[in-house]
Amino acid sequence: MVFARNQWYVAAYSQEVGDGLLARTVCGEPLVLYRTRAGEAVALTDRCVHRRFPLSESNRDGDDIVCGYHGFTYAPDGVCVAVPGQTRVPRTARVPAFQIVEQDSLVWVWIGEGEGDAKAIPRAPWLDSPGYVTVRGMEHLDARYELLVDNLLDLSHETYLHAGYIGTPEVAQTPITTEVDEDAGVIYVSRRMKDVECPSFYRESTGIEGRIDRWQDIEYHPPCLYLLHSRIAPTGIEPGPDGDDPRACHAEIVYAITPETETTTHDFWMVARDFALDDEGVSEFLAESNRTVVLQDVEALNTLEKVIATEPEGYQELSINIDTGGLAARRILQRQTAR
Amino acid sequence: MVFARNQWYVAAYSQEVGDGLLARTVCGEPLVLYRTRAGEAVALTDRCVHRRFPLSESNRDGDDIVCGYHGFTYAPDGVCVAVPGQTRVPRTARVPAFQIVEQDSLVWVWIGEGEGDAKAIPRAPWLDSPGYVTVRGMEHLDARYELLVDNLLDLSHETYLHAGYIGTPEVAQTPITTEVDEDAGVIYVSRRMKDVECPSFYRESTGIEGRIDRWQDIEYHPPCLYLLHSRIAPTGIEPGPDGDDPRACHAEIVYAITPETETTTHDFWMVARDFALDDEGVSEFLAESNRTVVLQDVEALNTLEKVIATEPEGYQELSINIDTGGLAARRILQRQTAR
Amino acid sequence: MVFARNQWYVAAYSQEVGDGLLARTVCGEPLVLYRTRAGEAVALTDRCVHRRFPLSESNRDGDDIVCGYHGFTYAPDGVCVAVPGQTRVPRTARVPAFQIVEQDSLVWVWIGEGEGDAKAIPRAPWLDSPGYVTVRGMEHLDARYELLVDNLLDLSHETYLHAGYIGTPEVAQTPITTEVDEDAGVIYVSRRMKDVECPSFYRESTGIEGRIDRWQDIEYHPPCLYLLHSRIAPTGIEPGPDGDDPRACHAEIVYAITPETETTTHDFWMVARDFALDDEGVSEFLAESNRTVVLQDVEALNTLEKVIATEPEGYQELSINIDTGGLAARRILQRQTAR
Repeated sequence: MVFARNQWYVAAYSQEVGDGLLARTVCGEPLVLYRTRAGEAVALTDRCVHRRFPLSESNRDGDDIVCGYHGFTYAPDGVCVAVPGQTRVPRTARVPAFQIVEQDSLVWVWIGEGEGDAKAIPRAPWLDSPGYVTVRGMEHLDARYELLVDNLLDLSHETYLHAGYIGTPEVAQTPITTEVDEDAGVIYVSRRMKDVECPSFYRESTGIEGRIDRWQDIEYHPPCLYLLHSRIAPTGIEPGPDGDDPRACHAEIVYAITPETETTTHDFWMVARDFALDDEGVSEFLAESNRTVVLQDVEALNTLEKVIATEPEGYQELSINIDTGGLAARRILQRQTAR
Repeated sequence: MVFARNQWYVAAYSQEVGDGLLARTVCGEPLVLYRTRAGEAVALTDRCVHRRFPLSESNRDGDDIVCGYHGFTYAPDGVCVAVPGQTRVPRTARVPAFQIVEQDSLVWVWIGEGEGDAKAIPRAPWLDSPGYVTVRGMEHLDARYELLVDNLLDLSHETYLHAGYIGTPEVAQTPITTEVDEDAGVIYVSRRMKDVECPSFYRESTGIEGRIDRWQDIEYHPPCLYLLHSRIAPTGIEPGPDGDDPRACHAEIVYAITPETETTTHDFWMVARDFALDDEGVSEFLAESNRTVVLQDVEALNTLEKVIATEPEGYQELSINIDTGGLAARRILQRQTAR
Repeated sequence: MVFARNQWYVAAYSQEVGDGLLARTVCGEPLVLYRTRAGEAVALTDRCVHRRFPLSESNRDGDDIVCGYHGFTYAPDGVCVAVPGQTRVPRTARVPAFQIVEQDSLVWVWIGEGEGDAKAIPRAPWLDSPGYVTVRGMEHLDARYELLVDNLLDLSHETYLHAGYIGTPEVAQTPITTEVDEDAGVIYVSRRMKDVECPSFYRESTGIEGRIDRWQDIEYHPPCLYLLHSRIAPTGIEPGPDGDDPRACHAEIVYAITPETETTTHDFWMVARDFALDDEGVSEFLAESNRTVVLQDVEALNTLEKVIATEPEGYQELSINIDTGGLAARRILQRQTAR
């Protein structure tokens, strides 16, 4: 399996990692995740060295994992500390332990060579900041992660696939601008709509009535982190000269795109907002609506994966202007994978 | 995938093609079928040129199809007439449109090279003639079409697989005559039974009591059209010298055998009769009985396909006289495929 | 598919083979099993020579099988005695008939070259002896038979996978002795526990209260027959000098390990006991408990098979002392397969 291994990936939400043993595969690498009594998140290879039994289907003994098949016991650093029927533990008995960084409510894992540079992890501070409230979820895709990248970098699909939720005719009609920072490896796609219809997703959550200005500023940090800075304001309201923008509503829509296998993906989605912070009803509405939108994507992408499985070698797609960001993303992902 | 592509295939019944978008795969070729407001049946490749989304899961806008993912819009000739975010449509943006001929209540499609010769399509006029009433259905086979061809060209299996419906001991006992018109590519297999038991299928539908003469005259036009001219008459009743045969009952049993993939098949079945024309009860009985018989075949052929999947390379069948027609069919199909 | 074909395998329990047509695949070889009116067990290839229809989905006519598709008829020796539409039966029309030996309530089959040596079949006399009562069952494994061999030769897993049933901490703690008779091709693994806890499996069935001496003497005859001589006695009770041992309880636990395909297995399990012979409640308890234990193994081994399907080439296991018997078994199985 070919993945960009020397990259940081989101393995889980912080809240998912606790006393239990969580199985999650990242780029074909089976991991077991848990949290020590001291609160440290741990990621080990999810295979006992003895007869490959999944440690995630085993039991904890304090901070150690005791294999559910023959009792091989592993400390959080992956070193085997006990085996059955003998007191001597073979020196080579250890499972790989992976470097973890918890940040912005996300558990990032490094499955690459050597030590990963924690400072290279892209940020999504809204997810864990005062002044923002976040709803989130995770869906499993039976489709390769590249299809999700394509999907998220070309939001013109909102008009067709998500009509009635976040899609309006103006999304597909409005041209985009695309910029690629090749050095930093970041892609920016921007669509600024003026005096347009407000989709129900934002009308019901922000309470704005009438026409709006709507900005969709995408910032994609391949391979894993996708940020959509969404600004909704009554038409004509502009940010102040120093960037302050109190009369607009901001939704920071974050995706972590983590390949599971070559043809399946973990689709982590989050919506952080700076409006209606105390309104539980808005949280429920956004969680429910965004999940519906994500599931519409899941269904479409799963369909595309099935189509790919039956298509002849050398099938050619046709790309147009809206695909500029997606094509740049493919180029960067290929470069990262080749490394 | 290897198919006899330069041949006509039944893609659908005429009545199936209407306002909706019908997905159907013929010889590995994914098609979307629909009918224009002027009544013309259309078959396009079921893949948007942009990101391969199935057009059959999209929407119609008048006679056009608007892709459900990003809104690429196609006219009935396959030409793309609109794309999102820009006014210029790329010149190469078009999906293949396939030649269609509607005839005898069947929608024939040409997926081969160049233009197909409509006059080469074999006829089944009873399906759409006064003086005949037809019942029909379609089953999906998880088995290669060759197994259905084998099945239909050797009706001795009626005695065993369809006992109690159309099978009686005499079917398997009566020898057949086989003729092959190599130039026209047509196979004739004939079994003429004299003074035999009438199976319930015909006893209950024709009302004939007592012994019968029963003819089974097969006419197979590879690859797709199979005709079984079935004549049932009280024993001793013969056709007149000029072919008129008013005291016999005739059932024209028609199959269209359309490969979907290498190992799956669309099994279209029809029973046209020249008796009990106004008797709705007979129609219901024949539809129900024939469907039961077809499903018995489906179950057996699906089993054979699973057997083939596990059998060693170079497995050898043993053939006898009853297989003469089936072996001739294989020879012609191989010739058509090699072309 | 690579199997040790020149070996005896258990195809069925004697009680499974009767008037019906039983389909069972042994080492990739599809068989149909039945019993003649004279009481002889028969095993034929489960494929009609004509169009490969499974004979197990056909019908009996006295001692013959009549194919359910076209009526080819086979005698118990596999010779075809009738075909449809003609009186001459082709001389080559026959399906392979396999050598069967019924012994110890088991139906052994020889799928290898030439004639198998019936005297080479290992014995399990308790299954069909006065003085013993047997409970039994059979589970289907979605895992290769080698995983079951591994499982059964290393009982330290009882402590972890079967805790509360047959596992106690002492099983994993107690060292084993392993002997291999290379000439006879038999592996002996012995674990003798003194003054240990009695697991519920034996406490409730033997009625022994308090601490026990517990022997687990494994005798594996690759590929198919596994015997576990289990002795349970109140601590300190020893067998007499001539081997008589009336104050101990003996359970003869027998497995027949029959590969179905490369990755699936028939897991025949039996428990014969020399205690509580007339106690139906003990029979029910042992049948139920042992089935639970077997299903715990099935679940674990099915998981391992899935793990193997995703693991990279050249994956290395780590083995320790407890694996000595299992590794010897692999060596002998490889030798048998290479032959």
